[in-house]
Amino acid sequence: MKTKAMVLEQFNQPLVLREFELPALQRGEVLIRMAAAGVCGSDVHMLRGEDPRTPLPIILGHEGVGRVLEVNGEKRTVDGDMLKNGDLIIWNRGISCHKCYHCAVLQEPSLCKNRQIYGINRPSTIAPYVNGCYAQEMVLTAETDIFRVDAAVDPAILVSASCSGATVAHAFDLHRPNFGDTVLIQGPGPLGVYAVAFAKKFGAQEIIVIGGSENRLQTCRDFGATLVLNRNRMSLEERREAILEKTRGRGVDCAIEAVGQPAAVEEGIKLVRSGGAYVSIGFSQPPGECRVDFFKEVVSKNLKIQGVWVSATRHTWQAMRLVLERPEQFGQMITHRFALTEANEALQVMAQRDALKAVLVP
Amino acid sequence: MKTKAMVLEQFNQPLVLREFELPALQRGEVLIRMAAAGVCGSDVHMLRGEDPRTPLPIILGHEGVGRVLEVNGEKRTVDGDMLKNGDLIIWNRGISCHKCYHCAVLQEPSLCKNRQIYGINRPSTIAPYVNGCYAQEMVLTAETDIFRVDAAVDPAILVSASCSGATVAHAFDLHRPNFGDTVLIQGPGPLGVYAVAFAKKFGAQEIIVIGGSENRLQTCRDFGATLVLNRNRMSLEERREAILEKTRGRGVDCAIEAVGQPAAVEEGIKLVRSGGAYVSIGFSQPPGECRVDFFKEVVSKNLKIQGVWVSATRHTWQAMRLVLERPEQFGQMITHRFALTEANEALQVMAQRDALKAVLVP
Amino acid sequence: MKTKAMVLEQFNQPLVLREFELPALQRGEVLIRMAAAGVCGSDVHMLRGEDPRTPLPIILGHEGVGRVLEVNGEKRTVDGDMLKNGDLIIWNRGISCHKCYHCAVLQEPSLCKNRQIYGINRPSTIAPYVNGCYAQEMVLTAETDIFRVDAAVDPAILVSASCSGATVAHAFDLHRPNFGDTVLIQGPGPLGVYAVAFAKKFGAQEIIVIGGSENRLQTCRDFGATLVLNRNRMSLEERREAILEKTRGRGVDCAIEAVGQPAAVEEGIKLVRSGGAYVSIGFSQPPGECRVDFFKEVVSKNLKIQGVWVSATRHTWQAMRLVLERPEQFGQMITHRFALTEANEALQVMAQRDALKAVLVP
Amino acid sequence: MKTKAMVLEQFNQPLVLREFELPALQRGEVLIRMAAAGVCGSDVHMLRGEDPRTPLPIILGHEGVGRVLEVNGEKRTVDGDMLKNGDLIIWNRGISCHKCYHCAVLQEPSLCKNRQIYGINRPSTIAPYVNGCYAQEMVLTAETDIFRVDAAVDPAILVSASCSGATVAHAFDLHRPNFGDTVLIQGPGPLGVYAVAFAKKFGAQEIIVIGGSENRLQTCRDFGATLVLNRNRMSLEERREAILEKTRGRGVDCAIEAVGQPAAVEEGIKLVRSGGAYVSIGFSQPPGECRVDFFKEVVSKNLKIQGVWVSATRHTWQAMRLVLERPEQFGQMITHRFALTEANEALQVMAQRDALKAVLVP
Repeated sequence: MKTKAMVLEQFNQPLVLREFELPALQRGEVLIRMAAAGVCGSDVHMLRGEDPRTPLPIILGHEGVGRVLEVNGEKRTVDGDMLKNGDLIIWNRGISCHKCYHCAVLQEPSLCKNRQIYGINRPSTIAPYVNGCYAQEMVLTAETDIFRVDAAVDPAILVSASCSGATVAHAFDLHRPNFGDTVLIQGPGPLGVYAVAFAKKFGAQEIIVIGGSENRLQTCRDFGATLVLNRNRMSLEERREAILEKTRGRGVDCAIEAVGQPAAVEEGIKLVRSGGAYVSIGFSQPPGECRVDFFKEVVSKNLKIQGVWVSATRHTWQAMRLVLERPEQFGQMITHRFALTEANEALQVMAQRDALKAVLVP
Repeated sequence: MKTKAMVLEQFNQPLVLREFELPALQRGEVLIRMAAAGVCGSDVHMLRGEDPRTPLPIILGHEGVGRVLEVNGEKRTVDGDMLKNGDLIIWNRGISCHKCYHCAVLQEPSLCKNRQIYGINRPSTIAPYVNGCYAQEMVLTAETDIFRVDAAVDPAILVSASCSGATVAHAFDLHRPNFGDTVLIQGPGPLGVYAVAFAKKFGAQEIIVIGGSENRLQTCRDFGATLVLNRNRMSLEERREAILEKTRGRGVDCAIEAVGQPAAVEEGIKLVRSGGAYVSIGFSQPPGECRVDFFKEVVSKNLKIQGVWVSATRHTWQAMRLVLERPEQFGQMITHRFALTEANEALQVMAQRDALKAVLVP
Repeated sequence: MKTKAMVLEQFNQPLVLREFELPALQRGEVLIRMAAAGVCGSDVHMLRGEDPRTPLPIILGHEGVGRVLEVNGEKRTVDGDMLKNGDLIIWNRGISCHKCYHCAVLQEPSLCKNRQIYGINRPSTIAPYVNGCYAQEMVLTAETDIFRVDAAVDPAILVSASCSGATVAHAFDLHRPNFGDTVLIQGPGPLGVYAVAFAKKFGAQEIIVIGGSENRLQTCRDFGATLVLNRNRMSLEERREAILEKTRGRGVDCAIEAVGQPAAVEEGIKLVRSGGAYVSIGFSQPPGECRVDFFKEVVSKNLKIQGVWVSATRHTWQAMRLVLERPEQFGQMITHRFALTEANEALQVMAQRDALKAVLVP
Repeated sequence: MKTKAMVLEQFNQPLVLREFELPALQRGEVLIRMAAAGVCGSDVHMLRGEDPRTPLPIILGHEGVGRVLEVNGEKRTVDGDMLKNGDLIIWNRGISCHKCYHCAVLQEPSLCKNRQIYGINRPSTIAPYVNGCYAQEMVLTAETDIFRVDAAVDPAILVSASCSGATVAHAFDLHRPNFGDTVLIQGPGPLGVYAVAFAKKFGAQEIIVIGGSENRLQTCRDFGATLVLNRNRMSLEERREAILEKTRGRGVDCAIEAVGQPAAVEEGIKLVRSGGAYVSIGFSQPPGECRVDFFKEVVSKNLKIQGVWVSATRHTWQAMRLVLERPEQFGQMITHRFALTEANEALQVMAQRDALKAVLVP
């Protein structure tokens, strides 16, 4: 059987549609037909060669939902159900080795040095070749952690659960807000929207978002933000004043950085109260150093700063459950849908920030 | 009754010996005769006017051990014992209000905005006037948390428990190493020595110290450091290689900054493994900003950075217990003893870093 | 000035209306006019002499909301605002000493051995005499932690925040559910209703309640319960099957006991999954022993059991915020309102479990 | 190649020496020559048919240390080193699936429902047949987590690290004592000895052990116990008084049950202070129910009870590191050494509690 996929062969060149011969499935492998593939901001960085993990050639796409076409032998979902043909599934985009020091001793599978990631570090030259989601069909290895979802769900709304949603779930695993907290979220992109949704879910009372796009800020409001601050209309000092006013002059209990720029870190750390937390998840490639006054902002404030790197199966599960609780609302995140062959256009709208989220659908 | 104390009347001028008339004790107040007063590195900063909390005139000295001369009414120790004349005592140098948002809702008394601290923010112009430890006698208010210690203990070895020891205890409360961890400590001063002692106590397997004084590094070794690196003899790169070699190339599980300089932060953060922690306690006044590559060192490493500000009664108790377990060893920290009237000399040896710890004794 | 209060003079005898001469306020004390006083299930136990803490004579009532009539000097709320006449306030019913080993070293003020509690362990024979909420006026000591609330709030809906609400907040402080958890709550009384509200607030996905009153179960449903099981209509085995079915045969992630009977513990522990938690808050006096198979239910399940005793100021604050987010819904809890002089009738409806919550209002 | 092993073919009958043909190694499998096999108390229960997990026929022995004879392909240790012939190794006795809800979502591999355990639930009828440590040679599957140890170490002292040591490490992962805590340990068997060693390692100040054998209590003392109470010489009330005296009447901060009898639980829970923890690890099969007064001992004390079931790779690593820090002392635990063919005698000395620890050596 043959399939087609959009392949990144050279950095900064358009993806090319290529045909692949599907290999025979190994024991436990699952062949799926893609139902939706998310186009992530980091795909744009990969296209440009800015992500050092990228091998060539590679089928991009690490966010996918698909329908089972064939299983070699038996394969169970994480919940213990046997996979059947036709099942609609989502999976953890990364596969940790379970055997290394980070996996087995530290129990931090997100930090596994041997982590394989569909569409990110597995080129299309190693079996089973169709190792990314920008494809008609795809093969999931036996080690992949899979969840089955209700066949009635729109696949497009789920794809981000396996990437930005899972990463935000990881952030909340590492720092849980307390009931009644005021949480600041910097950046209203997909990470930021998930951060609003999780903060609300965990009992935050005030959720403040700083961003530059009125549309995206409105989406955050719809998800539960109680105050949005447009950085194109308010100065740094005005934003600071608005936040201090909202917090009796104390600063926020927790700030979540979902921007990936030093300026955001430098602004955000100063807005957290004594004893609060600053959670940084937005950096997917190096944009330069941040300047931090350790005496004033870290030590004398007893501040906790927590970096968050990717995610594990537990987080995909959490994000998936979050999306399934409010499917219509998450549908709102999907601003653009394209055919597989239009992947280059999809990358372009993501690069130009026209889209909050673009998805490839059959 | 009259008493004498060394008073800071003008910044950058020598302390002056002044006589004070002791006021009548209020209910619950305790008059003590000083048995030992620690001279802290931050006293040097106060003398120079670098600590913004300093009112004038003030009796310096926030680390003290004394003997009870008189109690007005009843006063119990934290352990519930009634104080008696002659008891040898140590106390928490800070008094939190127990009533504010940080105390009552967040349960973080170290961050209380109304915190009163002997020898730091209570001038000698407010009753009971003798509000610092550089004195013959001193009055402890009814709100002070007091511990009784065995009369046979050398008071000089205990004083640092109420300041550097307690601050380090607070650090370990906020980030506990795991059994078997490799812990890096930057700076072999009193904070660093306590960090070595606590790290060993909590089960660290390797304890590495970076410092510039061979004497101090030797003290750290005596307290349990398993590797010391002299930054005057090894380059930044050599130190890095030594640490990677000791940790199978992973970096340390936890690093504790006890230096207070941006260069230390910038070196230390890079030496922590993925998923590890960087604990910063050394900054007692602002020496400028640190430059941190958030992508590389924080986000992609899932790093936790924890600032630590002062301490609470619980930490004084922990540090006191630590010292009392190994009194001879902690005695080694006391490199200089002076009479009260020699306080200016004591400050000078601390300023010149001749002393690891200087103590005023009667 | 004189005031009146309902006094418990002999166990198992009706409360008696007595007149009290209000003493002059001490510095920091606050005289209030009661706006609402909650009648708690534990008041019934006190009336019967079943609570060993009860001194005689005592003005019952530990849940109150009032309006400030007078302050001697200055008194600030926990949030730092100066109290003014006319302010509507709620307060922490307990006053911990902040000085003992449990307060100062363990930082567990709920367990303070010197804890004073309005209406529970302070008789009407010690100044300022009006030490309970079943009164027209009441004096709050300077040590009381006070919160100001919007004058427009119905005081009756808030009173339970300072007792059952705060105790449940404490429970969630000691064991926080994870996002997506299934939480079982045993007992749909005020504790159970708060448990439903907090579980929902913290992101529980399924909230199951077992109870015997259809009305109360309906209230739980209104607060967010997703499944209610009436123990008068379903056998132990049927309840178990319903719960296993809801949880893929695993059992619930967390069960909260809000009943206070051994049979509830014995049922509930068996319904928790491996690695889950059983939180027990319902016992306010001793009803006999529970039989627990430690091999099967505790050790081989890696179970955590957490007892929860009373609460601290932080929890009153959390419960108050919860109520103020959904005032209409919490209004639903108030099934009976009585005048102060009808306190005996109010105790009776609580004893007969006719009421979910009875409140005395002016 | 042929090998021999001692096989349990019928409950309550002596093990029988049988010859096995070693199958060809699968990819990643490791053939080892046993260097030491621990005889565990639970082996005695298995012999008697008291452990419901036991299939027949089975080669007993879940605690082993061996030397690599052959590897098919490559196999790395958890630390990332390639295994070579001749390496001395220890391994996690259990193999979790990494794919189920407990492994992947809850990240609790100890509770994996598919957990395979050498010598406990893998009969000698399934390949590679030599699935237990009472054997001359043994085959470790590719999924086994392996650590390499210094060839100079006496293998006998390490075996218990993979069972009782790892289980105790798990306990301390679930409840870490605070610095300065008083820890009570019930039962001075191998679990209890490890509990003493870990408690000391984590900073406990007082370590009290209750037991019935003077020899074992002496061993505990050598490992760091500061007070031992012989239950054959002291009444329940005398033990209680001794403990209250040691703890200023408060009770211990934490008690660890390593006995497996209801009477121990019933005694121990009453000896823990308000706000303390009771950790139960001693039950490996059901000896009946415990009676617990939830009002008095759990709720009004805010007690945490934590059950502990088996362990994961992280815990084997921790226990191994602990043993390797003090090899001579752990050598003291090994009271009996037998040849493989004397396994029935070894089981007998364990059953009669003559041995603290018996080990089979070549």
